[in-house]
Amino acid sequence: MSTLGDLSGVAVGHWTDAEARTGVTVVVLPEGSTASAEVRGGAPATREFDVLAPSATVTRLDAVVLSGGSAFGLASVDGVMSTLAEAGRGFVTAGGVVPIVAGMSLFDLTVGSSQVRPGAAEGAAAAAAALSAVSSPGAEPQAVPESMANAIEGGKHAVGQPAVGQRGVELVFGAVGAGTGATVSKWRGRDHAAAGGLVTATVVEGGFSVSALVAVNAFGDVVGHGPAGEPWPSLVPPDEVGAFGADAATSSAGTNTTLGVIVTDADLTKTECLLLAQGAHDGYARAITPPHCRVDGDAVVAAATGAVPLADPSDPRRVAEVELLRWMAVRATADALATLAGVAPTGPIPWMTPPAEPGS
Amino acid sequence: MSTLGDLSGVAVGHWTDAEARTGVTVVVLPEGSTASAEVRGGAPATREFDVLAPSATVTRLDAVVLSGGSAFGLASVDGVMSTLAEAGRGFVTAGGVVPIVAGMSLFDLTVGSSQVRPGAAEGAAAAAAALSAVSSPGAEPQAVPESMANAIEGGKHAVGQPAVGQRGVELVFGAVGAGTGATVSKWRGRDHAAAGGLVTATVVEGGFSVSALVAVNAFGDVVGHGPAGEPWPSLVPPDEVGAFGADAATSSAGTNTTLGVIVTDADLTKTECLLLAQGAHDGYARAITPPHCRVDGDAVVAAATGAVPLADPSDPRRVAEVELLRWMAVRATADALATLAGVAPTGPIPWMTPPAEPGS
Repeated sequence: MSTLGDLSGVAVGHWTDAEARTGVTVVVLPEGSTASAEVRGGAPATREFDVLAPSATVTRLDAVVLSGGSAFGLASVDGVMSTLAEAGRGFVTAGGVVPIVAGMSLFDLTVGSSQVRPGAAEGAAAAAAALSAVSSPGAEPQAVPESMANAIEGGKHAVGQPAVGQRGVELVFGAVGAGTGATVSKWRGRDHAAAGGLVTATVVEGGFSVSALVAVNAFGDVVGHGPAGEPWPSLVPPDEVGAFGADAATSSAGTNTTLGVIVTDADLTKTECLLLAQGAHDGYARAITPPHCRVDGDAVVAAATGAVPLADPSDPRRVAEVELLRWMAVRATADALATLAGVAPTGPIPWMTPPAEPGS
Repeated sequence: MSTLGDLSGVAVGHWTDAEARTGVTVVVLPEGSTASAEVRGGAPATREFDVLAPSATVTRLDAVVLSGGSAFGLASVDGVMSTLAEAGRGFVTAGGVVPIVAGMSLFDLTVGSSQVRPGAAEGAAAAAAALSAVSSPGAEPQAVPESMANAIEGGKHAVGQPAVGQRGVELVFGAVGAGTGATVSKWRGRDHAAAGGLVTATVVEGGFSVSALVAVNAFGDVVGHGPAGEPWPSLVPPDEVGAFGADAATSSAGTNTTLGVIVTDADLTKTECLLLAQGAHDGYARAITPPHCRVDGDAVVAAATGAVPLADPSDPRRVAEVELLRWMAVRATADALATLAGVAPTGPIPWMTPPAEPGS
């Protein structure tokens, strides 16, 4: 079962602002990685997802960025790109390298401060943290949140230091990087929400590793966490639809989103990576209630480092292997989500005061 | 909670061959129904799914056909179309009506007889059974399998008589129409498979009804049924990949598929119907292990009769209503699948003798 080094070369770095409750997480992939992605929520914020389509020509992916800050947070990709370009990572052109970096963001503007959003500098800091981790694989990671424990165990992920941006508040497990301002169970109304966060799990089988890293900010409940065990509320209260946006100041509409990254050491095609992204969404369906809402922007990037070869495409064993890997993606994602209860911060959520009425 | 008549005008008819273990199920929708669909398995057999895309011009759907017989079974749509055309149902053109009928098939050729497949005559018989049910809504359905009990209850579906095609073997609950030759748990190998079948469930909430009708022929386990509670097998046995098709005579590869129909009384657009189809697939993900395999052709059609109006698209209440309906589709589908254990036939599955080796 030892898989030390199976995902070697994969590194995770964070920028976290624990006071403003936002952050960014960067997953840097080893050279030669390929990937695809799938969106299955109604309110996504993504960048470079089109190039991940199996029909698109470029097959490489250099990094994945998960960020808070809603669609503003996609700006953090700018800094990840420049950091990777300086390191020589990217698609080689006559005009220099162009790093292929996929970005996806979740909504955390109503928690902590809405004015602090991960931008280029914050993305660069997280990318640098990741690169420093991957460049010194023997070094002991420092100040690593225990929510990353599964990823670190066995060396599957090198994890960068949370680094800059921490301001005075003790870092809480789960509340790191893109998960810092995350909340869940908002379909019950803001007053019944629980903290979300960044979670991870790894499944090892058949000679392959599949890791899931998920920033959970779901409209729905997450299995075993918060009010998940309580009966579900009606989604259409007879007299008000507060959770769905009738009142923008207190609504949870569009203020959610669960972001996932699947990384496997298998040598997959882009199309096969898409199947693993689909599998991760099946993991969402198993662990989130209700899943994939219109007010979620649920998205998954699935990447393959290519370290472990598969059977030839003409060999029926190939179908079995891809099936196994897809199923491992379901399990890793559901397993990761099931850890949220153990790593999410407790205590009240620092909702911002709703903005004043116009004219008042 | 009484919803008598909410899905009035929706009728279900079957043709069943209990000896050859195959059949076809037709869901006739009331005039004015719209629909969309989603495929999420690796080995689908479908017909008229492209016209169900939200971008396609035609918005009407007259009927949905679920059939056994693998891709051959799509021929049953021919007979459904001619029967509906004779009844004056369809898209009106200067050359007469063209019924819009979506078809999807599952693989049952290795159970019972591989030579009996639902064709035009069998599709026509099932359509006639459905039309006779809907044309006499007050009549008591006869010889109705109890697996349809939920659908019948409250008059949500009129159910046609299983009618022609029964040959000497007592009809077993669940083993009717498209579910007649269905099997599940084939990922454990043929010897460990359990019977599948046709299942249904209805969820009523917020003034809406959502019914799911599912023909379950999954590669994976179905919750609570057969060997579902046992630990899962490795998907890649070290020395053989029998379940995945190394030996075509005994393989389960491509011999699966779960087909679903969602019907709601809500007045949805095609795009909103697509969201309900997505919800049904989340129901698959919750109740089937592993879900959505490469050797499944999992597909769902979601139809809306339009009887119950929704809020205006500019009203935030509309989002809440669609969210509720999508979630009801998740639940109805998972609920339906959970009934399989109670309605599937027991006893050995009549697998056909594997064909002789070529030249032997």
